[in-house]
Amino acid sequence: MHLSEITHPNQLHGLSIRQLQQIARQIREKHLQTIAASGGHLGPGLGVVELTLALYQTLDLDRDKVIWDVGHQAYPHKLITGRYSEFHTLRQKDGVAGYLKRCESKFDHFGAGHASTSISAALGMALARDLKGDKFKVAAIIGDGALTGGMALEAINHAGHLPKTNLLVILNDNEMSISPNVGAISRYLNKMRLSAPVQFLADNLEEQVKHIPFVGESLTPELHRLKGGMKRLAVSKVGAIIEELGFTYLGPVDGHNLAELIATFEQAHHIQGPVLVHVATVKGKGYEIAEKDQVGYHAQSPFDLTTGKAIPSSKPKPPGYSKVFAHTLVKLAENNPKIIGITAAMATGTGLDKLASKLPKQYVDVGIAEQHAVTLGAGLACEGMRPVVAIYSTFLQRAYDQIVHDVCIQNLPVFFCMDRAGIVGSDGPTHQGMYDIAYLRCLPNMVLMAPKDEAELQQMVVTGVNYTDGPIAMRYPRGNGYGVPLMEEGWESLPIGKGEILRHGDDLLLIGFGAMVHPAMQVAEILREHGIEATVINARFAKPLDTELILPLAQQIGRVVTLEEGCLMGGFGSAVAEALLDANVVVPVKRIGIPDTLVDHAEPNESKADLGLTSPQIAETVRQAFFSQQLSPVGS
Amino acid sequence: MHLSEITHPNQLHGLSIRQLQQIARQIREKHLQTIAASGGHLGPGLGVVELTLALYQTLDLDRDKVIWDVGHQAYPHKLITGRYSEFHTLRQKDGVAGYLKRCESKFDHFGAGHASTSISAALGMALARDLKGDKFKVAAIIGDGALTGGMALEAINHAGHLPKTNLLVILNDNEMSISPNVGAISRYLNKMRLSAPVQFLADNLEEQVKHIPFVGESLTPELHRLKGGMKRLAVSKVGAIIEELGFTYLGPVDGHNLAELIATFEQAHHIQGPVLVHVATVKGKGYEIAEKDQVGYHAQSPFDLTTGKAIPSSKPKPPGYSKVFAHTLVKLAENNPKIIGITAAMATGTGLDKLASKLPKQYVDVGIAEQHAVTLGAGLACEGMRPVVAIYSTFLQRAYDQIVHDVCIQNLPVFFCMDRAGIVGSDGPTHQGMYDIAYLRCLPNMVLMAPKDEAELQQMVVTGVNYTDGPIAMRYPRGNGYGVPLMEEGWESLPIGKGEILRHGDDLLLIGFGAMVHPAMQVAEILREHGIEATVINARFAKPLDTELILPLAQQIGRVVTLEEGCLMGGFGSAVAEALLDANVVVPVKRIGIPDTLVDHAEPNESKADLGLTSPQIAETVRQAFFSQQLSPVGS
Repeated sequence: MHLSEITHPNQLHGLSIRQLQQIARQIREKHLQTIAASGGHLGPGLGVVELTLALYQTLDLDRDKVIWDVGHQAYPHKLITGRYSEFHTLRQKDGVAGYLKRCESKFDHFGAGHASTSISAALGMALARDLKGDKFKVAAIIGDGALTGGMALEAINHAGHLPKTNLLVILNDNEMSISPNVGAISRYLNKMRLSAPVQFLADNLEEQVKHIPFVGESLTPELHRLKGGMKRLAVSKVGAIIEELGFTYLGPVDGHNLAELIATFEQAHHIQGPVLVHVATVKGKGYEIAEKDQVGYHAQSPFDLTTGKAIPSSKPKPPGYSKVFAHTLVKLAENNPKIIGITAAMATGTGLDKLASKLPKQYVDVGIAEQHAVTLGAGLACEGMRPVVAIYSTFLQRAYDQIVHDVCIQNLPVFFCMDRAGIVGSDGPTHQGMYDIAYLRCLPNMVLMAPKDEAELQQMVVTGVNYTDGPIAMRYPRGNGYGVPLMEEGWESLPIGKGEILRHGDDLLLIGFGAMVHPAMQVAEILREHGIEATVINARFAKPLDTELILPLAQQIGRVVTLEEGCLMGGFGSAVAEALLDANVVVPVKRIGIPDTLVDHAEPNESKADLGLTSPQIAETVRQAFFSQQLSPVGS
Repeated sequence: MHLSEITHPNQLHGLSIRQLQQIARQIREKHLQTIAASGGHLGPGLGVVELTLALYQTLDLDRDKVIWDVGHQAYPHKLITGRYSEFHTLRQKDGVAGYLKRCESKFDHFGAGHASTSISAALGMALARDLKGDKFKVAAIIGDGALTGGMALEAINHAGHLPKTNLLVILNDNEMSISPNVGAISRYLNKMRLSAPVQFLADNLEEQVKHIPFVGESLTPELHRLKGGMKRLAVSKVGAIIEELGFTYLGPVDGHNLAELIATFEQAHHIQGPVLVHVATVKGKGYEIAEKDQVGYHAQSPFDLTTGKAIPSSKPKPPGYSKVFAHTLVKLAENNPKIIGITAAMATGTGLDKLASKLPKQYVDVGIAEQHAVTLGAGLACEGMRPVVAIYSTFLQRAYDQIVHDVCIQNLPVFFCMDRAGIVGSDGPTHQGMYDIAYLRCLPNMVLMAPKDEAELQQMVVTGVNYTDGPIAMRYPRGNGYGVPLMEEGWESLPIGKGEILRHGDDLLLIGFGAMVHPAMQVAEILREHGIEATVINARFAKPLDTELILPLAQQIGRVVTLEEGCLMGGFGSAVAEALLDANVVVPVKRIGIPDTLVDHAEPNESKADLGLTSPQIAETVRQAFFSQQLSPVGS
């Protein structure tokens, strides 16, 4: 059987180890070819090929449910659940998603994109199953990185308390999140990985005894006690923590040995209550280049399969925002030992790896633990340090109460740097940085800014680091800047709450925030062709808003347009509308931004076109809203 | 020395055990008298009197820092840190706060109110200390309930990875959160409590050896190994989990034995790296009635000290919202086995204890673990159950990403019931339910409603349970309803996104949301006295907003006022303003709600008066905004 013939995972039933090995090879081939051609997550999927095949051979996927954490390692799962033929469309508009999606396949039982959610979701399904008197199996597959997220630990605490609820948790232990894993749990798992695999005496014993009529029944209490004792012996301290937390521990298992995996999963299915199977895998397995550079090959842009080298883009691009951010922060930190950069397992993504290598003492990676990252920052701020918490917009959602309760209420000077704010492209709805303006703006004491380009980002890094009156946040987009000249020195703070006028015109007031300031200028140029002259403001701050600048101009011009790359509900445009109404400046306001909808994976430009956010589309929207009489360009 | 003479905790230095016992008695006396007179948290503080005194005797509080988790157990701390003479003002306007506040005392090193934050904050301070080359001690005191919050586990994972960072974590183990604690960690701690106290051989050994010149130095590696072995032996498996996570474990210690506590803390101060001292305490210790009913006496309204009975209020009050919510939910759940009520350790506060006793199978308490609670609900929803997640507005902040990522993006029908939405009174800024409208409204697929009174709450419970198209949230205030007649049957769903007109008038459109609908009617009555006739709308839904009803009336009347008990930034009024502007209905809008400021502890009515949110104040604000010509009542 060839992989292409598998449209249902139950087709794996009855395949020999040798046949499964062939399928495994074909999965790796397809996986590598696809990602080499169009980019995507490379290492995570390669590490779980055998895990996926072995598990699925032991399950009935018409009934049983597998919940993958994060989802970026689920490409093998996708390839054997009916998505082989479309797999070349991976992460492209209208193509196969890069993460899991309930609407994409009946085998995607729970969507993901962020880490640490799978055990909670699986336990919910298991509880529902038992209440309904149903019998299917539920398995959650979680990485050792994701296990350090507090939510996963909350779920383990709950599941371990439910000895009658059958739940299989598979720990995919590759010693990595995106970067090498940190924390005591990780160190403990490493110790476990080095120990001998467990002999499952206890459960075999039970299996054997319970089939003896009468004896099996009547012996139950004694048997149970015996089993407990033997199991404790069997795990020989390795799984002690997990056993103490109420789980049966099986492992460690070689995650690339199909026979061992199958035997262990079969065994796990016969154990009552929560079971954790500890699988040791290698990220990037089967592609030597990725095995050797596991951080670099976590995810990849299109690359040459033979050399592993990224295929250079046709023309050189300006530096990305993350890079400029990191470069600027390192420069500042070199002269200010109080600056401490904090990341939650995203050293490379945020650029903080630069800080780690240059100034390791001023760098903290807390693991996938955004809540702890923020309050750790609050603690540092109490002692006069300058914590710079660099977390993507979408992941900062995971620390919302810490921002409210520990930072804003105490008015502590923590500097939040939110990379990937706005439309993120091929990662899709779980990763869009859409909500941060709305969810941060409403918090007392918070200052919220966004740079119009990479040079202004530099100024805002300086501003954030110098601002000590309370919390301050900066949002900036994924991707490359405009290639404007960067500053190497002479940096000064921007005045808090002050915008700037970029262009004057009497017909319209365009107020752009962050990534939408350049488009606002383009819109103004297009409108000029229609004889419409716009004033353009770079707001710089969504909070405090520069009402001194905006209100008189809005009053005078009488037509206001706001532009933002964020959700319209409660966003920057609403801030402007609120300010105008509060000042009794009653003028029409057209708010341009992301409407109240999810934004699917696609190239950012494709998403923007779909949402009407390209400059020509915006110009047309504005023209129709305010100047519907003037339909043709000047001079035509 | 009498407690009243202690204005600085260092005055405890040198006191004998007997003297400390006297102080302990005086603290209990003052504590009980104060709470009996004016209400507050009773059991938590009584449980940590000796812990507080013993710890503070071993610290130099001019340098060392103690971080209390939650803060409701910090009344003894307050009584010995200069707040004795004002303690009678506890939880009253301008009085001593019921939780911790940095601005209240230099000994409140980190504010609190929510659980599970202390270890993160303390670790931040410890890291800052080491970076600055300072030497002070940092101690975090966390309850066994708070330890099940994922954030605390994230912090332990991080701290356990830093063997050179001195940090003392004191586990105040009273086997309770507000209710009896749940989860595997709790079960494990119970097992530990029952074990014999640990003999600290290993560390004593080190102490003794290291003072021998040369030998102490040269033996270090061997000594270290020896110490490890002996410590492992000493903890005799009890503290195994904690030791495996990189902490030195000391305990369990009798939390009411001053000598034992002092000896253990002294010992802990001499150990390098993270140390956890496990202290077994009794909630309510020293007040027999509270010891016997630990749930009931967690917090109390004013009560008779002899009988423990609450002092009845002068006139009978209508039933509270929580009670009506629980009553209605139980009724519905009796006829619908798919309904599952989920609480995060707030069974009594939310009223879900009623569900627990009537229909235990349809009830889940996950412990202090809001993130897990929400995603567990999402998992249940996937399987067709009707999860009802009952979490206070302020605590739902702790599960924001789970709402976004697991519920809204997947459009799963989870019903969020947010008690304590709006101004909560004496609990103060950490507990105000101010932000939920803003932080939920911006999420695609979310429906958000709020009842005008307790009867409409009943209808909304029905609506929420019956709504299966996606997530739906209901916010309702703390406290009592209006005494309107309740329905016992014949409940029907309200139409989603539809408001109602309560009153007609041509001069003004008043749109109230939830708790501000009745005040809107009062405002209308007051304005009538000034000859101003208002139309009043009960919006019912902030999302979707009833634009069909609102837009034509706003257009026609030309003056709009919105009223909400939530933050003005991005709140309900902004939703109305957005809808009007989007429809090009350009009319003045006066938004009434909570301005961009923290709201301190006080009686709710006092807070409202301070914020200009009483009906007469609102009427006056509206009159000045729109009718400043008409300054005197009609006929005067």
